[in-house]
Amino acid sequence: MPELRKDPITFEWVIIAGERKDRPHDFSKTTSTEEFPPFDPNCPFCPGNEHLTPPEILVLRDGHSSSNWSVRVIPNKYPALRIEGNTERKGKGMFDYMDGVGAHEVIVETPIHNLRFSDLPLEQVKKVLTAYKERILDLKKDTRFVYILVFRNEGKEAGASLRHPHSQLIALPFVPHEVMLEIEGMRRYYSFRERCPFCDMVKEELQFKERVVVENENFLAIEPFASKYPFETVILPKRHHPSFADESECILDDFASILKDVLSRIDKALGNPPYNFTLHNTPLQGQSANGFHWHLEIIPRLSTPAGFELGSGIFINTVPPETAAEILKETLP
Amino acid sequence: MPELRKDPITFEWVIIAGERKDRPHDFSKTTSTEEFPPFDPNCPFCPGNEHLTPPEILVLRDGHSSSNWSVRVIPNKYPALRIEGNTERKGKGMFDYMDGVGAHEVIVETPIHNLRFSDLPLEQVKKVLTAYKERILDLKKDTRFVYILVFRNEGKEAGASLRHPHSQLIALPFVPHEVMLEIEGMRRYYSFRERCPFCDMVKEELQFKERVVVENENFLAIEPFASKYPFETVILPKRHHPSFADESECILDDFASILKDVLSRIDKALGNPPYNFTLHNTPLQGQSANGFHWHLEIIPRLSTPAGFELGSGIFINTVPPETAAEILKETLP
Repeated sequence: MPELRKDPITFEWVIIAGERKDRPHDFSKTTSTEEFPPFDPNCPFCPGNEHLTPPEILVLRDGHSSSNWSVRVIPNKYPALRIEGNTERKGKGMFDYMDGVGAHEVIVETPIHNLRFSDLPLEQVKKVLTAYKERILDLKKDTRFVYILVFRNEGKEAGASLRHPHSQLIALPFVPHEVMLEIEGMRRYYSFRERCPFCDMVKEELQFKERVVVENENFLAIEPFASKYPFETVILPKRHHPSFADESECILDDFASILKDVLSRIDKALGNPPYNFTLHNTPLQGQSANGFHWHLEIIPRLSTPAGFELGSGIFINTVPPETAAEILKETLP
Repeated sequence: MPELRKDPITFEWVIIAGERKDRPHDFSKTTSTEEFPPFDPNCPFCPGNEHLTPPEILVLRDGHSSSNWSVRVIPNKYPALRIEGNTERKGKGMFDYMDGVGAHEVIVETPIHNLRFSDLPLEQVKKVLTAYKERILDLKKDTRFVYILVFRNEGKEAGASLRHPHSQLIALPFVPHEVMLEIEGMRRYYSFRERCPFCDMVKEELQFKERVVVENENFLAIEPFASKYPFETVILPKRHHPSFADESECILDDFASILKDVLSRIDKALGNPPYNFTLHNTPLQGQSANGFHWHLEIIPRLSTPAGFELGSGIFINTVPPETAAEILKETLP
């Protein structure tokens, strides 16, 4: 029997219909088996081709890298939003618009062309997280920006146009809709229970362990109760903390370790699937900035949303999160 | 310069970034060129294979069809929701869920295996719309259902698992999230302006004609001001009317004609792209049922939403709706 489940924060309903699909490992069909070399002379992100990208915003170096950089942050050459302009809202008849103001940056995660995120050595993952943090703290100084979204597309089917390992960030002059849904949901939950829903979720998931993939001292990785997508995974700090960028180095060490662990399990269990991850961080300004509980969402791209999903916003998930958690728990990275 | 545009109803922001993409007709690369026969002996929807599907719920016939039916409605063999069960909400710790109650039906649109919707003769399109209407009016009698979503997936990339022309409907025990966004936005607009935003949009688009694709006596097809997707098209009745299923036959004749016209233009301009369409109808019950202004949304599936879209809910549209409207206006069906 399919089940309708309600997201405890956003109140979005999801259909969990385990029977529609055969066994979950059928998904390994989506495996991308294409082979890539460790260096591609035509790749703008490979060492030696630095002149093909705009000048660097941030460079992290180390002693033993083959190139003179370890992580590079550059402006996106084809930005979705531009740094020039102001945030004045304008009207035209019944419609509202504004300049496409924002920042769009690329974090090149390693000099090596053909790695997946889960292949990066732990030290390198930490460097990438440090780059996220430094860029957020720097962009925060620009008071036009209200939100910064860090995200990563792994594989063409997840929207990656270049193979070389990279993540991106976009700074926005408002809090985006998806994040507002969470913020409003957190407020509603708080006004009803006087507790943070993410803190409650940590407690509840740790008590019953049905949907826990893995945990360490400071973080927990779960398959959410109302997962929209098969093997959707959320990593969240165990104790309430609004802002990723304000976490201490030792906390981020713990985060690097669970992030690498979880992505390795997903890659192994599902055969290197395409996926996205997005960092749900607190808004940079405003009332809601302190109430937030930051987290990271990983979405393997195993199914195609169709007319029903687009028209209703209701997703049909053919792998119950309890099944997904069991599979990922048993997959050792 | 990219532009940020706000949907006047849902308040969702969209990035219109025409420069990121080269010319729009680059999209014709997504053309599906696979050829199919008019009859496939293995297709469960082809005439002669009626025993492969569950028994019919509704059959429309005509004199000159090669089979003994013209349109068939059947229960989905692999339903996302099931007709058995009740709508009682249940709790488990902090989480809420309910039985996966609903109806999931398939409307087989023609006995001919290899047509696209735009290939259907006008008379056949009218029959399909009549089937939608009759099924909505019948399912409405089941008081457990609050909303019925009619939708169509054309092409594998749009989620269609079977080639034979068909649409689907799912009856739900609540108003889905995407529709609630519209209803809440309509209320907000109404409380501010005391007018229906869709009625205002009809007037404004007809006045400036920048985004109008085509119109007839009773309907208007536009590329919305804050289109999330390239060539997203909305067909809406010119005069306020909440419910598709309560429209008279002569109004539906007009709707059939503009629907076929618009889909023919899209197929021709974009080289038979994958697409979805969804019928945004009024809820079956409740306060909001009378305030709605029904419409149909067509979404060509030309781009892949990536991490940014999933994490923010903000879509990057590389074809400004004004450009899309110009192209579709000039494409004669």
